Amino acid sequence: MKDFKVKKVEKSLEKELQHKIDYKTKPLGSLGKLEDIALQIGLIQETLSPKIKSPTVLVFAGDHGIANDGVSPYPQEVTYQMVMNFLNEGAGINVFARQNGLVVKVVDAGVNYDFGSLGKLLHYKVNKGTRSFLNNTAMERIELSECFIKGSAIVNDLFEKGCNCIAFGEMGIGNTSSAAMLMHYFTETDLHDCVGRGTGLDNKGLKKKIGVLEAAVEFHGELEDWEKIMMAFSGFEIAMMTGAMLQAAENKMVILLDGFIATTAYLAAYKLYPEIKNYVIACHLSDEKGHKLLLEYLGVSPLLSLGMRLGEGTGTAIAFPIVNASVNFLNEMASFESAGVSNKE
Amino acid sequence: MKDFKVKKVEKSLEKELQHKIDYKTKPLGSLGKLEDIALQIGLIQETLSPKIKSPTVLVFAGDHGIANDGVSPYPQEVTYQMVMNFLNEGAGINVFARQNGLVVKVVDAGVNYDFGSLGKLLHYKVNKGTRSFLNNTAMERIELSECFIKGSAIVNDLFEKGCNCIAFGEMGIGNTSSAAMLMHYFTETDLHDCVGRGTGLDNKGLKKKIGVLEAAVEFHGELEDWEKIMMAFSGFEIAMMTGAMLQAAENKMVILLDGFIATTAYLAAYKLYPEIKNYVIACHLSDEKGHKLLLEYLGVSPLLSLGMRLGEGTGTAIAFPIVNASVNFLNEMASFESAGVSNKE
Repeated sequence: MKDFKVKKVEKSLEKELQHKIDYKTKPLGSLGKLEDIALQIGLIQETLSPKIKSPTVLVFAGDHGIANDGVSPYPQEVTYQMVMNFLNEGAGINVFARQNGLVVKVVDAGVNYDFGSLGKLLHYKVNKGTRSFLNNTAMERIELSECFIKGSAIVNDLFEKGCNCIAFGEMGIGNTSSAAMLMHYFTETDLHDCVGRGTGLDNKGLKKKIGVLEAAVEFHGELEDWEKIMMAFSGFEIAMMTGAMLQAAENKMVILLDGFIATTAYLAAYKLYPEIKNYVIACHLSDEKGHKLLLEYLGVSPLLSLGMRLGEGTGTAIAFPIVNASVNFLNEMASFESAGVSNKE
Repeated sequence: MKDFKVKKVEKSLEKELQHKIDYKTKPLGSLGKLEDIALQIGLIQETLSPKIKSPTVLVFAGDHGIANDGVSPYPQEVTYQMVMNFLNEGAGINVFARQNGLVVKVVDAGVNYDFGSLGKLLHYKVNKGTRSFLNNTAMERIELSECFIKGSAIVNDLFEKGCNCIAFGEMGIGNTSSAAMLMHYFTETDLHDCVGRGTGLDNKGLKKKIGVLEAAVEFHGELEDWEKIMMAFSGFEIAMMTGAMLQAAENKMVILLDGFIATTAYLAAYKLYPEIKNYVIACHLSDEKGHKLLLEYLGVSPLLSLGMRLGEGTGTAIAFPIVNASVNFLNEMASFESAGVSNKE
């Protein structure tokens, strides 16, 4: 597996940043989480005047063998159909990214469809979907390794073009099942607490999904090794996101985290390099069941809680103006001194 | 007092709107609160394709006699200094509104300062600050009535110029004290649950503030009449917001509600015309103590909870992209049919 150099942020500017935040024309601390983000991004970028440049949503798409075992109410073909919808700019992520000034790039990490040389799509297919983890490992070691290399390459390409802020989203019918298994194995959370309704299972469907995942746990038994867990249950889009996030952290880029599935990709990254935490902003608490516990496990607090559970990076695109506002107040607000406003007596 | 014609929204398009929301390319209900807002604005505007036009933040500024009785750590002059800061575009609200495409208009509702004929400021001064409600009513009946008439005129002026969405913010040293008293008298909530740290009182300062407000309760005794409560405790900026909000509801405009003080203005409006609820979106849960209970009393759930407590309408400006996104997904997202995506099996 590819190695990454993920370092803690340098804290030498912390006091000066906090001073700049505190002397803006506002009561001390009155911008709440925006002040935390301003400080975080200032530390990441090692400057008192941070800037978000070319913010980009990477939507990683991949198919899952497990989708054919009755874990989703939608057929697998929806994955490639939604990829086409992304490219035609008709999906939720397109609307929200366009509104808020983010570029959307769609990555074929492993969709079970032949896109040919279709323009606009980033062609990084590892294979045409994973194998079902009900009775096999989802992927080979070499495929997992390929995910890391490709995820890293995608991020480096954006970085070289001047991007310093990447949002991570995904599309893949069946991938809440993969994510639930990764959460269960990496965090030892009870399986039932990791499994939710995904795209909208009813009670009967949810029961069936839990049954399938319990059978998979039985098949795979105990797994403690990071690679074995990922080979067993990951999707190509999840593992490629993991590699991409690690490269983003190595490059000192701001990482915007979407919902449940993107967070399991982050969990896998965090297990290897806990310092990645310095670079991450959790954007939205998904309505998908496992997400709350998973964020608590990771010790990150989401900016938004709007009851969304769409994936695609929509949570990051909706939260992005808040991240932007954090940087903007630091750069643009007057200080008590510059505005001639009396400070606290 | 001026009367308003505030009506319930017409619900005849509800089913069609819900159908349009449900057939977008996303799992049913997966955009959470954005779906609620899309429906609400569609009903307000009575159309399947609602639009937000010329969104404007009105920042109402006023001074409070009570500010000189030791309830705030900031001197009263900060009110006019901050008005100047707004006009020079250096305050938080300027930064956030500029970023998110809202126009800021600053209203002198009753600042204790002579601005002369200063351009850009909307001159609607009722008086140079209220009287201290520690031993007097804050304002005369005629002043309260004037607040309604002026608030209404400001909103009608914007409406005639094509604006259909108004955000309400305020500035006024001492106004969390006014707001706490209005909340206490209108909702019968225990005074201690209505009083918070405002711009940042320490424990000693908070104790003193509570003492002052307890003395005011003793002085005024029981008051049940709406006008008497407002005359006793309101600020000019609060009462003018109340009138402005009622006019906005009469005009079927979308009302974006900021923090604790703006919410007490809304409370006063709601007490007169409960139908105003149809037009309101609560944008942010303030860190100021009484706000959570007050929103619960009013039965509205805030979009954001970012630990902010700055006022000025900053919560509305930060939340505005979410409101905008709600309308945009309804207008711009593809449907299952138009995108050729398979729906649930």
